[in-house]
Amino acid sequence: MKSASGHPSATIAGTPSLSSMFDLVNDEMALVEDWLKSNLIDDNAFVEELLKQIFCAGGKRIRPLIVLLSSKATAREVGKLSRLHIILAVLTELIHTASLVHDDVIDKASMRRGQETINKKWNDRIAVLMGDLLFAQASICLARIMNPVVVGIYGQVLGDLCSGEIKQMRQQFNTTVDWNAYIDKSVSKTASLFGAGSHSGAILNGCSNDVIQSLKEYGLNLGICFQIVDDLLDITGSTIETGKAVGSDLRNGVVTAPAMFVLEKNNEASARLKNLIDSRDIQTDEGAEEALQLIRDNGGVESTVALAQKYANDSIASLSLLKDSSYKTALAQLAEYVMTRTT
Amino acid sequence: MKSASGHPSATIAGTPSLSSMFDLVNDEMALVEDWLKSNLIDDNAFVEELLKQIFCAGGKRIRPLIVLLSSKATAREVGKLSRLHIILAVLTELIHTASLVHDDVIDKASMRRGQETINKKWNDRIAVLMGDLLFAQASICLARIMNPVVVGIYGQVLGDLCSGEIKQMRQQFNTTVDWNAYIDKSVSKTASLFGAGSHSGAILNGCSNDVIQSLKEYGLNLGICFQIVDDLLDITGSTIETGKAVGSDLRNGVVTAPAMFVLEKNNEASARLKNLIDSRDIQTDEGAEEALQLIRDNGGVESTVALAQKYANDSIASLSLLKDSSYKTALAQLAEYVMTRTT
Repeated sequence: MKSASGHPSATIAGTPSLSSMFDLVNDEMALVEDWLKSNLIDDNAFVEELLKQIFCAGGKRIRPLIVLLSSKATAREVGKLSRLHIILAVLTELIHTASLVHDDVIDKASMRRGQETINKKWNDRIAVLMGDLLFAQASICLARIMNPVVVGIYGQVLGDLCSGEIKQMRQQFNTTVDWNAYIDKSVSKTASLFGAGSHSGAILNGCSNDVIQSLKEYGLNLGICFQIVDDLLDITGSTIETGKAVGSDLRNGVVTAPAMFVLEKNNEASARLKNLIDSRDIQTDEGAEEALQLIRDNGGVESTVALAQKYANDSIASLSLLKDSSYKTALAQLAEYVMTRTT
Repeated sequence: MKSASGHPSATIAGTPSLSSMFDLVNDEMALVEDWLKSNLIDDNAFVEELLKQIFCAGGKRIRPLIVLLSSKATAREVGKLSRLHIILAVLTELIHTASLVHDDVIDKASMRRGQETINKKWNDRIAVLMGDLLFAQASICLARIMNPVVVGIYGQVLGDLCSGEIKQMRQQFNTTVDWNAYIDKSVSKTASLFGAGSHSGAILNGCSNDVIQSLKEYGLNLGICFQIVDDLLDITGSTIETGKAVGSDLRNGVVTAPAMFVLEKNNEASARLKNLIDSRDIQTDEGAEEALQLIRDNGGVESTVALAQKYANDSIASLSLLKDSSYKTALAQLAEYVMTRTT
């Protein structure tokens, strides 16, 4: 069953439905989609074709959803947005998409959102340039918003995205458990953009500092939760769901929460897992399977769900300062929705 | 012989000396260098090392020179700059450097400015991310300038850089002579950033529209001239001078002015050159050597010098509206300097 917004409705009673959240921003999301699919200025037919391919391939549009809901929740006339909020939503999705295109080059990924990646279908050269072009389009959007504070926030996000990836690359096959470094990397890679999207609309709305700060906390916590869930899905998810092979991050030596919970145990299981990673045996089918089993058998999954839930709860708690509205409710439901990905 | 600025002085009488131009902005250029080499915020030691490697490797700093000279020439109190002008110069060099780092990935280049490229010394992944990081740093600089017009100008430049490369990639081995497309590509790849750097300082100085427009024309014409000279050096330059093998663009099917002047002749030479490109024989040592000889023997070099000179003259003519000053003189000399690269 699909709603008017094209998003699947919930089928389990009590599970928050993504479509009900999208229904609250239907008109605005249509403008965002239009912009992404047709308003990107380029006079080159080939580039236009590539841009269409990138944006028509789908994507959940969770980041623009956060921008639109948080902007509507804090609008002077609740629910009324300006053109600047639409641009903010477009910008947020552009940065996300640009970083995916470059990540696929970096990870040599061949599939994304059920389609061949740009680097696979064409080549790395085209993918590097298309990512740059999307970042450039984001800069143009940022310019149109004409708010120096918002420009500063998104500038920081752009830096965070790169340094997050570099941090991850440098920590490959590192079995030292450092939770601060893990959360720090999750903020850089994911939560920084969530946080920018969640509070920039309130800045444009001229909200008080405490409301702005609350929404920033909401986005940061939700983003960390989202990244932890992503890391969990590498262990528990199906290829159909995640679009990549189970354990593919682990095989590449990306040590995340599920493995860290086992590694910090200081027992036989942690020693074996450490050995599999140190020896690079984890890159083989047998080694990866054994590591996945060790993580599943030693509470790595449950502890990771609990960690993600903590950040989901924190994100919901951050909303307490906001006036009640359907948009505020939807923001809280979004945190619950992110947690449903774990089940 | 080196001046205080570290740039070689002229040895031939009458040839404009780059060092005399740099001497006019010595203090400001020192601030730009400091910023590039040490003020780039990053808390990761590895990233810091990479940034140092990139910026300590040199580079002529022609783009920041244009920013500083044009800003000084149009300052309310001639010669007096603000911190914003320094940031503008840094920003311009950051964008240039970021695009070089990505170009080296795209071109699989192994040497740049006499050093191993990031992609060669490390790998493509690090180089893509470092380029992204430099673009991100540029966005942060842009944010600090807090001028929406300047933000819009540089946003456009970022888009132009990518579309210029994509245009070039799509035109590889294309022997149809289209001068508009060639100039258009040269603007996107090179002149757009020159133009942004040459007139944004005047915008910050609150100059009249005709002064701003004149400086934009100056930068665009100088940038086109610079690109044409670069294309010429692919045919006539030495490896020591350009850092890459003679004819390497031509071998890659990048058809530029020197070849185009021969291709449009409709004679035996043009037919042979077309054949070498169409057949991809140009990718071989013998084919490339024959093509280079055809271009040299059929006036390709002289016509290209004349074309570059036309744009150099136009850039100098664009300066007529500016009040006389040593900075204005230096801007004109810079156009002459670019032309000396051809001899």
